[in-house]
Amino acid sequence: MQGLMQDWPLLCHRIIDHAATYHAARPIVSRSIEGPIHTTDYATVRRRALQLAQRLERDGVRLGDRVATLAWNSWRHLESWYGILGIGAVYHTVNPRLFPDQIPWIINHAEDRVMMTDLTFLPLLERLAPQLPLIERYIVLTDAAHMPDTPLKKAVPYEDWIAEADGDFAWKSFDETTAAGMCYTSGTTGSPKGVLYSHRSNVLHSMMASAPDAMGVSSGDVVMPVVPMFHANCWGMALTAPMNGSAMVMPGQKMDGASIYELLDTYKVTCTAAVPTVWLMLLQHLQASGAKLPYLRRVIIGGSACPRAMTKTFEEDYGVEVVHAWGMTEMSPLGTLGSIKPDYAGLTGEARLDIKEKQGHPPFGVEMKITDDNDRDLPWDGKTFGRLKVRGAAVLRRYYKEDDDALDAQGFFDTGDVATMDPHGYMHITDRAKDVIKSGGEWISSIALENLAIGHPKVAEAAVIGVRHPKWGERPLLVVVPKAGETPAREEILDFMRSKIAAWWIPDDVVFVPEIPHTATGKILKTALREAFKDYILPNRVAAE
Amino acid sequence: MQGLMQDWPLLCHRIIDHAATYHAARPIVSRSIEGPIHTTDYATVRRRALQLAQRLERDGVRLGDRVATLAWNSWRHLESWYGILGIGAVYHTVNPRLFPDQIPWIINHAEDRVMMTDLTFLPLLERLAPQLPLIERYIVLTDAAHMPDTPLKKAVPYEDWIAEADGDFAWKSFDETTAAGMCYTSGTTGSPKGVLYSHRSNVLHSMMASAPDAMGVSSGDVVMPVVPMFHANCWGMALTAPMNGSAMVMPGQKMDGASIYELLDTYKVTCTAAVPTVWLMLLQHLQASGAKLPYLRRVIIGGSACPRAMTKTFEEDYGVEVVHAWGMTEMSPLGTLGSIKPDYAGLTGEARLDIKEKQGHPPFGVEMKITDDNDRDLPWDGKTFGRLKVRGAAVLRRYYKEDDDALDAQGFFDTGDVATMDPHGYMHITDRAKDVIKSGGEWISSIALENLAIGHPKVAEAAVIGVRHPKWGERPLLVVVPKAGETPAREEILDFMRSKIAAWWIPDDVVFVPEIPHTATGKILKTALREAFKDYILPNRVAAE
Repeated sequence: MQGLMQDWPLLCHRIIDHAATYHAARPIVSRSIEGPIHTTDYATVRRRALQLAQRLERDGVRLGDRVATLAWNSWRHLESWYGILGIGAVYHTVNPRLFPDQIPWIINHAEDRVMMTDLTFLPLLERLAPQLPLIERYIVLTDAAHMPDTPLKKAVPYEDWIAEADGDFAWKSFDETTAAGMCYTSGTTGSPKGVLYSHRSNVLHSMMASAPDAMGVSSGDVVMPVVPMFHANCWGMALTAPMNGSAMVMPGQKMDGASIYELLDTYKVTCTAAVPTVWLMLLQHLQASGAKLPYLRRVIIGGSACPRAMTKTFEEDYGVEVVHAWGMTEMSPLGTLGSIKPDYAGLTGEARLDIKEKQGHPPFGVEMKITDDNDRDLPWDGKTFGRLKVRGAAVLRRYYKEDDDALDAQGFFDTGDVATMDPHGYMHITDRAKDVIKSGGEWISSIALENLAIGHPKVAEAAVIGVRHPKWGERPLLVVVPKAGETPAREEILDFMRSKIAAWWIPDDVVFVPEIPHTATGKILKTALREAFKDYILPNRVAAE
Repeated sequence: MQGLMQDWPLLCHRIIDHAATYHAARPIVSRSIEGPIHTTDYATVRRRALQLAQRLERDGVRLGDRVATLAWNSWRHLESWYGILGIGAVYHTVNPRLFPDQIPWIINHAEDRVMMTDLTFLPLLERLAPQLPLIERYIVLTDAAHMPDTPLKKAVPYEDWIAEADGDFAWKSFDETTAAGMCYTSGTTGSPKGVLYSHRSNVLHSMMASAPDAMGVSSGDVVMPVVPMFHANCWGMALTAPMNGSAMVMPGQKMDGASIYELLDTYKVTCTAAVPTVWLMLLQHLQASGAKLPYLRRVIIGGSACPRAMTKTFEEDYGVEVVHAWGMTEMSPLGTLGSIKPDYAGLTGEARLDIKEKQGHPPFGVEMKITDDNDRDLPWDGKTFGRLKVRGAAVLRRYYKEDDDALDAQGFFDTGDVATMDPHGYMHITDRAKDVIKSGGEWISSIALENLAIGHPKVAEAAVIGVRHPKWGERPLLVVVPKAGETPAREEILDFMRSKIAAWWIPDDVVFVPEIPHTATGKILKTALREAFKDYILPNRVAAE
């Protein structure tokens, strides 16, 4: 028997409709690319998004067509998302931080027909244009006064372009599983892979994110996504903030400590989100200037693990609650958030920081499990670590243009991370699955060893990789960049680590190198390290043989 | 183009799975029907709900079958909902406060196969049993020790019955539009009408209710639904609390002031919800005892309009935020909630109470409009009132066993209420559409006149109905029950009203009666009044003709 309730498709443009109807005058403040601060509101964003939709349609953009955006966080970028998805086209956020040859690759792979770009990226696009044969026209997110000469195909300033439409236009209707957005993951190996969000997954993700134990933003919040809209679906915030009628502050391209502080303070931001690097710059600025954060209540930190010291500083020195979060582009992207549940509410000091070091627990709509290599479930004891797999309303099923679903027999997606789960459902990332060292059937976390080694006063950077071993399969090799002017000894480093972990976790050898290779986004490029040391002979292996 | 995200159906049992996984030990405290306080947790509720599901299936209950519950709020009633819906059967909550002849009517109309009942209702059911030929067995929500002798068909105590299943059972999977729950509306005219909730509508409703500006309950909240589970889908709280991992307190059948206060205080309830009558009893108890409410943060008040004085007392004397809410069984049931948006955040005192008197604004997922009799949209100026129509993810499309959808051409459901909308989207109920008085094409609110008349010191109760008038179509007639020992004069009452409203709103006459007829749920039965006064000749009509 079917229920007899209305069929009300979960369409993303209903979000901006809701914001414009019930939170019409809530301010959207942006640091514009041109320089000055710009203020608008949800009613105006919606009105202009409708003009944009109408104008796109006049240019022949149709249901399912991809429209690229290469832009910082601003009101115009926000309007672009809604205008594009409101006719059933797909916003494809291009990450300008990719290696230059990856940018044309993903634009061509996505078959984007239109490019909407900030002024910032005109030189880049002018260089890449010959490799972008499918782009039919370039919309520059500025007005006529700031429009430079550019040879880009049919280039037009955004303001003039949308002004050609009167906005007497209605959103298109279609099935809620229609594609709405697209974002490529930049793996350390292989080509980038496209994740194709549906209207349904985006709306459900925002509803999940709205719950108080997740992002929990309200109409009383002033939300600043420092995380760029081109990074992992903007952590959902371009949809979650309007859904809840939160005011928004968009930082544009300036993400240094002083610029971010100025926005936090001037516009009384209550909730913000970004990667640890951004907060490191902010905290350095605050320390240098002596400024405080009287309005900020919550900072959501993800993208990479939030250092314990950062949590401590935000919470104890500035009275700002840190919500450690984890997710991935394939999860729209929220997986877990580290809000404190009653089970841990009584903890203080170091015991509280122990919990805050974990990446948190999932909202309703995300299921998780940890498994061994044979796909057997592992216990949630906070110690056993295994492959982290996820299933849910906003989790990827299949990458764009792939032939097969990326799921296991139970419908779970393998995150590629290795994690523990504790009895209260808090997840803690231990390693990447491909970096974990498998020694005699047991797993050793490369990240745990790196974090330990980095604590030695003579170590600038450390990486741990598995090296082949005839008896144990793999054993850990520690690669160290010494601090300038230091020449630490092998035993000195290993002795420092010995008392702090199980004996069988101690690396079999240490090599000193002048530098360690990194990915475009600053992560250690372990594939290159593994390649460099693939024939390395461990000393105790020699001894043992 | 379709998105490539997972198909993760919105099934209600995923809610109890989530609660049992991530909030396993959160307490569910109930005042049992047998007397003592009982405590359990989400992991146990889920385990027992699985036993119940398995046991129901063994009794032959299948996808789409209806199972009636006639019960107060308790852990066993909660287990019943999830156990029933987890095999695709439908929980049908029967309201014991209906007139006795309506109870068999709705049970037979729903074709319920099993009745799960509290001890309280055995005498009622024993009387009604001959009229309930379709009920195959009665499950009594108690244990063997408390089980009385009863002639009810195959009656068995719940605890023994579920103990016959080992719980080694998995929820069934089915389409998310499958029916999950059922609740009849008891109109003042005609037969009750069945509303059939789907899994999807229930899950989406709970996600909508979770938003901070709606109910916004978190895992740190202790939620007490005083509103019974048999009343309008329990305002969604039996689903919203577990979705967010909130602790729950279930008041059983005792809803007097002292009993409610005891639970609020002992179990540190932070959020509760019920109709004004319940809170009147609580406030009287508090006044008499001098007790305070140190733990309670929020009280959600709906079902009928929350008196201004009640809001003032809760907020100013007890520091408890009042969230005035409005909804209906046909909306799952939440329509609007009166949380304060930034637009009104600066208001205090009487100006704040003016806003709190409105029923609030809808969460994402509910659309509203007000229209005139020709279905033209009316302005949102806070003054113009019109028929309130709604559309959304958890709004009724069609009543059970009806042939036609109950929607207008745009897919909106007419709530039968008359309301204003203000520029910030706050809705204020003015009247019921059938009670509004249509005088010369303009509308007069019967409720506004009643509220005014009731303010006169000699008036105990007042009702206003429209009486036919040759020139104006209808004109208002005020029906008054004087206070004991008082004999107010017609002009005395009208003079009292005159300065406070527009002259053309003043009733054309006043009649004094010893009592006014009421519905089963205590509302004025205006149909009976209109019948009684259908040939009434208004004095100024005589004068005018």
